Amino acid sequence: MGFHGVLGHEFVGIVEKCDKKKLRGKRVVGEINIGCGICFYCKNQMHNHCPDRSVLGILNKDGVFAEYITLPLRNLHQIPDSVSDEEAVFVEPLAAAFEILQQVNIESSDKVCVLGDGKLGILIAQVLSTTNCNLFAVGNHREKLSILEELGIKTKLSLSLKEEKFDIVVDCTGSRSGIETALNIVKPRGKIIIKTTIAKRDQIDLNHVVINELVLIGSRCGPFPVAIKAIETKSVDLFPLISSSYSLGEGIKAFQYASRRDVLKVILKIT
Amino acid sequence: MGFHGVLGHEFVGIVEKCDKKKLRGKRVVGEINIGCGICFYCKNQMHNHCPDRSVLGILNKDGVFAEYITLPLRNLHQIPDSVSDEEAVFVEPLAAAFEILQQVNIESSDKVCVLGDGKLGILIAQVLSTTNCNLFAVGNHREKLSILEELGIKTKLSLSLKEEKFDIVVDCTGSRSGIETALNIVKPRGKIIIKTTIAKRDQIDLNHVVINELVLIGSRCGPFPVAIKAIETKSVDLFPLISSSYSLGEGIKAFQYASRRDVLKVILKIT
Repeated sequence: MGFHGVLGHEFVGIVEKCDKKKLRGKRVVGEINIGCGICFYCKNQMHNHCPDRSVLGILNKDGVFAEYITLPLRNLHQIPDSVSDEEAVFVEPLAAAFEILQQVNIESSDKVCVLGDGKLGILIAQVLSTTNCNLFAVGNHREKLSILEELGIKTKLSLSLKEEKFDIVVDCTGSRSGIETALNIVKPRGKIIIKTTIAKRDQIDLNHVVINELVLIGSRCGPFPVAIKAIETKSVDLFPLISSSYSLGEGIKAFQYASRRDVLKVILKIT
Repeated sequence: MGFHGVLGHEFVGIVEKCDKKKLRGKRVVGEINIGCGICFYCKNQMHNHCPDRSVLGILNKDGVFAEYITLPLRNLHQIPDSVSDEEAVFVEPLAAAFEILQQVNIESSDKVCVLGDGKLGILIAQVLSTTNCNLFAVGNHREKLSILEELGIKTKLSLSLKEEKFDIVVDCTGSRSGIETALNIVKPRGKIIIKTTIAKRDQIDLNHVVINELVLIGSRCGPFPVAIKAIETKSVDLFPLISSSYSLGEGIKAFQYASRRDVLKVILKIT
């Protein structure tokens, strides 16, 4: 988005100042899209698609790598005591994973492939496994896939895919060739959910989409309450995703560590 | 498809020879995809997606610009006496138009744009107008759009589109820039139905698809019985689409005439 400013949009914090008394002192997470409040989209519960929105740490609004931030009250969701800070920072990406279930009806008979074993892929695989579909998480990193295997989710290395075909494929590779792989492994009349946004990616063959009557579904931010509930009820296990914690003062070190291929989520703490 | 052979896949004919006695001498149209009959797709009423299919006049099967053709019995649909030969040749493309209604639920509150005023666009606009949605047919040819205006369908010239946004857009432009226009005029969370297959088209911005949570739906062949019923009940008016008729012997002349920009459907007759 060409953003210049304070980064960061996944957080948990304590409300220090606000009009709503009973929220003061409470732990909250916050939706990152701030709509204008008056347009068609805002009035129809689609703040995320307000054409004049700002987005926390991404577009026209400084983010959460800071001691204090502001957000509209309607963006805040209180965190239950049983949910730890470490889990709560996953609410935003976990909600994005749950967005898929708002968009696509996944049946237990569906053969589903989550393509990509990064942070988002691991969250999405856990979320989709709650549908009891015939799920396979596919990626390039044996050690990341092992997190899912320990949760009872079937995994495959990308190289071993070959001729296999799926009813539904989720591209969360974050790579330029992810969508091409998805197109190769989806059945005729199948669905591809696209989670990956990247600067450059391979051109796709839309004739293939037409001839095979494929459905391509863009998917972005999702429902926070559903994500909070899933953490509260232990439907997902987030701790294996946390590679390390740093203080905000060690931010540069934290970024260097986070850029390693074997590292998943790195948490910054205001201490 | 790189096809070499006899072209043609939209037809009506008389059954001269077949095992099913009561079909002999009857007028029929025929589905163009010939499945293997034994694979997963064929066994689940998806012959159109059989990986080993041949396609009449398009793939591994000579087409209908001929005195005689063969087709499996299951591909044939009898034509009622009240439907003329001229109307019956539209069953195949009209079925392709109706395929959209099998794939997408169009509400009367939806603002819908049919992009492209060629033969398929004119058929699709008529089919979608049966849903009572807020429909606009958009194209570059005033005289082609006037066919739809006379049927009570609202039209716009492409140039006059500007800032307008639609819930659903159908790309049947047959042009390389059609999909780009569709992406520009579809609302967030909107749907684009892609009917256009072409050799080369503009690259599309999949980030735009993700951020706006768009749904792209490839759409090809459709249900023949629905199309036959629509003609029988006069739900569509096909006669304005017929620009001329030629005998098969005048085929070259017919093709030359059909290549003119102002010409719509040209019919070849075996006389």
